[in-house]
Amino acid sequence: MRLAVIPGDGIGPEVVAEGLKVLREVAPDVEGTPYDLGATRWQRTGELLPDTVLDELRQHDAILLGAVGDPGVPPGILERGLLLRLRFELDHHVNLRPARLFDGVASPLAAPGPIDMLCIREGTEGPYVGNGGVLRKDTPQEVATEVSLNTAFGVERVVRYAFERAVARPRKHLTLVHKTNVLTHAGSLWSRTVEEVSAEFPEVTVAYQHVDAASMFFITDPGRYDVIVTDNLFGDIVTDIAAAVTGGIGLAASGNLDASGTNPSMFEPVHGSAPDIAGQGKADPTATVLSVGLLLEHLGRTEQAKKVNAAVAFDLSTRDPQAQVRTAEVGDRLAALASG
Amino acid sequence: MRLAVIPGDGIGPEVVAEGLKVLREVAPDVEGTPYDLGATRWQRTGELLPDTVLDELRQHDAILLGAVGDPGVPPGILERGLLLRLRFELDHHVNLRPARLFDGVASPLAAPGPIDMLCIREGTEGPYVGNGGVLRKDTPQEVATEVSLNTAFGVERVVRYAFERAVARPRKHLTLVHKTNVLTHAGSLWSRTVEEVSAEFPEVTVAYQHVDAASMFFITDPGRYDVIVTDNLFGDIVTDIAAAVTGGIGLAASGNLDASGTNPSMFEPVHGSAPDIAGQGKADPTATVLSVGLLLEHLGRTEQAKKVNAAVAFDLSTRDPQAQVRTAEVGDRLAALASG
Ligand SMILES: CC(C)[C@H](C(=O)O)[C@@H](O)C(=O)O
Ligand SMILES: CC(C)[C@H](C(=O)O)[C@@H](O)C(=O)O
Repeated sequence: MRLAVIPGDGIGPEVVAEGLKVLREVAPDVEGTPYDLGATRWQRTGELLPDTVLDELRQHDAILLGAVGDPGVPPGILERGLLLRLRFELDHHVNLRPARLFDGVASPLAAPGPIDMLCIREGTEGPYVGNGGVLRKDTPQEVATEVSLNTAFGVERVVRYAFERAVARPRKHLTLVHKTNVLTHAGSLWSRTVEEVSAEFPEVTVAYQHVDAASMFFITDPGRYDVIVTDNLFGDIVTDIAAAVTGGIGLAASGNLDASGTNPSMFEPVHGSAPDIAGQGKADPTATVLSVGLLLEHLGRTEQAKKVNAAVAFDLSTRDPQAQVRTAEVGDRLAALASG
Repeated sequence: MRLAVIPGDGIGPEVVAEGLKVLREVAPDVEGTPYDLGATRWQRTGELLPDTVLDELRQHDAILLGAVGDPGVPPGILERGLLLRLRFELDHHVNLRPARLFDGVASPLAAPGPIDMLCIREGTEGPYVGNGGVLRKDTPQEVATEVSLNTAFGVERVVRYAFERAVARPRKHLTLVHKTNVLTHAGSLWSRTVEEVSAEFPEVTVAYQHVDAASMFFITDPGRYDVIVTDNLFGDIVTDIAAAVTGGIGLAASGNLDASGTNPSMFEPVHGSAPDIAGQGKADPTATVLSVGLLLEHLGRTEQAKKVNAAVAFDLSTRDPQAQVRTAEVGDRLAALASG
């Protein structure tokens, strides 16, 4: 397995080291190549994602990213120039974010009940396309626009992917989250697409919820959800709600997939670079290890993925919730469990 | 006080009746004029908001709305043709949504702590403007767009309003919620505006959060917020999260304000018409009564508003959370308490 590794900034390198520790335990054939990208490189060289690096990344089977970011970098620079550029260049149209409440993990909810949802967020369209502009900047007549672009091609492929995942799960339930009553143009495209594709998946039951209502039900009744499919911006928000109710972004894993397999997919914890705790060895690498599980699954290494996920599930069920996390110790434990 | 009353559909008329009961108790000078608008009227006559009705509405000091909607009406019809049309025609640029966890109210959070925030959502711009379209509908080449429009004029006035509210509160704290790292054009306008206006309010401390992070902190640490200012779509979502953690939309009140006073402001519970429980006398009118409190406050009737809010606070602290709500009984109790 040729793996491109982007440790990134802050706690990124720390959690990636543990992710690789666990990965190597179950997949000894991993050949990892590190790529120095992120805030530090930008601050040093002004470079975000040179084309030559992008070309090299394409030569890999998958990419593992830690986290990028630093308070010294203005908002938008790394996001548009690196993170989103990777998603767009590598056509990562499926942003996969499972949210499961593991045994032993405290939810902020009083009565969470079982939670096991798979959020599928579109990754290459919507308000994320960077289409918009500013007129008469810094005057009282300034106008700023943001355009959400949605195509039949782009919506159909992610909706189809969501149905494929839903039909393979025990509950076979899919919820479309959008705001069709206000964003009527895009909403109509999303609704019609779900309706059309659903004809090919008669076993899958389908529900629809407005994003505001869904944001409430994620809190009051998260157990009702199985697979969720939604647009890029709504997905950004609801997946963080899902992460919050299942124990926080310290446990939230994600995959940015080119489901066609043309480009390597990228796996990363949802959390950021957390500069405030960087270098102290107390970042929780669990989200990175779960992202490694998604990576293995995506590459068809089902047995290896199962070992990683089972190691995490076991470890979480036996952790002392009061104890201070030690990054390397968690990695050691998970590696040992995964190998056993 | 000349009050236009739009009872609407489903439970709308039931909760509005109780809202008026309480209002009349504290403000005997109310002259209410009912307006038949909503799903029922549309289904009967095809009319949503005739211009003559709109002109009449403008002649009032304020508007009280119950809820509109019916499953038989396609999505977008009432929203664009009635609810949003009212907001845009009457220039309701401040969408005011307090979220307070009252004593005696159960939060879905395990450890909510005290919550008392005032969400201020922009109401006449952003992705709600209806600017967008569809190209090549129903073909594999379909493209659907939604344009978020943001103007210096529109952002500045709502941000200024938010600072004015923040400076009048004990904590004097304001949080801007946006997604400046992705929606860089609109985000820059919002950030710059907050920065500029903040110079006039040196006592107010200012924070910024991305909408995805805020959506998490609303769940994990809602007590940190005081006043929140945000765009129309983000506001739609985060105010429902705020409602969820403070006991649900059965208690969520809102005001759609023309803060300039040129047009009448409109007050309504955040919940919908709930056709499933309509006509059974079991809808909770508390959100409507709290909306009446906002209405009185907006009209400068501070003492009357205080009576209404105190009645609700007392009633909630003594309610049996297991008991089935009886709409008219709650109204009777609140009216009696408010008059006392
Ligand atoms: C960092 C940012 C660009 C990104 C997003 O908005 O998609 C992040 O919030 C995420 O969810 O992966
Ligand atoms: C009904 C709908 C148009 C409305 C909105 O999106 O603003 C509602 O959700 C609200 O929050 O008042």
